Amino acid sequence: MARVVVDVMLKPEILDPQGQAVANALPRLGISDVSSVRIGRRIEIEFTGAADPERVREIADKLLANPVIEDFVIQEVDEPAAVPAGDPS
Amino acid sequence: MARVVVDVMLKPEILDPQGQAVANALPRLGISDVSSVRIGRRIEIEFTGAADPERVREIADKLLANPVIEDFVIQEVDEPAAVPAGDPS
Repeated sequence: MARVVVDVMLKPEILDPQGQAVANALPRLGISDVSSVRIGRRIEIEFTGAADPERVREIADKLLANPVIEDFVIQEVDEPAAVPAGDPS
Repeated sequence: MARVVVDVMLKPEILDPQGQAVANALPRLGISDVSSVRIGRRIEIEFTGAADPERVREIADKLLANPVIEDFVIQEVDEPAAVPAGDPS
C-alpha cells in the first residue's frame, strides 16, 4: 500500500486573496513579522498496491490542479498515515 | 527570512466529501487502484526574520485550522520558495 502526497500551490505570479486575508489578519493577533502567506491544497492519495508515478502525475494534472494557474509537487510517502496521539475526549 | 509550512488535514474520523468526490472520479480516468483520497490545505508562511515555533503554533491554532475537526503539522523550510523551471509560454 503506497501513499502519495500531491501539494498544489498557486503559481508565484498569481494573486492569492485567501492567503492575503490571513496575512492581513495577523497584526490583530499581535504578529507583525510575517511577509507573506500563500494557501494551497495538500492531497493524500492511498493506493491499494504500488503507486505508479506516471499515473499520479496524470491524476494531479487532470483532476487536482489547474496547470494554467497552479503548480504541483508529488512526493511518495512510504509509511502509513500518521495517527495523531489519542485525544482523551 | 524563514519559511514555515503548515499542513492542515481533516482528522481521520471526519468524512471528507471533497476527497470522496475525487476518489469517485478516478475510475472514469481508468484508475481503479486508489483506496482513499483526502484533501487538506497547505499554508506557506514567510517571516521577515526567524520563525518562532510558538507563534506559528498560535497562528495555526487560531487562524488556519479548526482544532475540533482538523489536525495540523508544522514544518520549518529553510530554503527560499522553489521557483519552477521557466514555462516557455
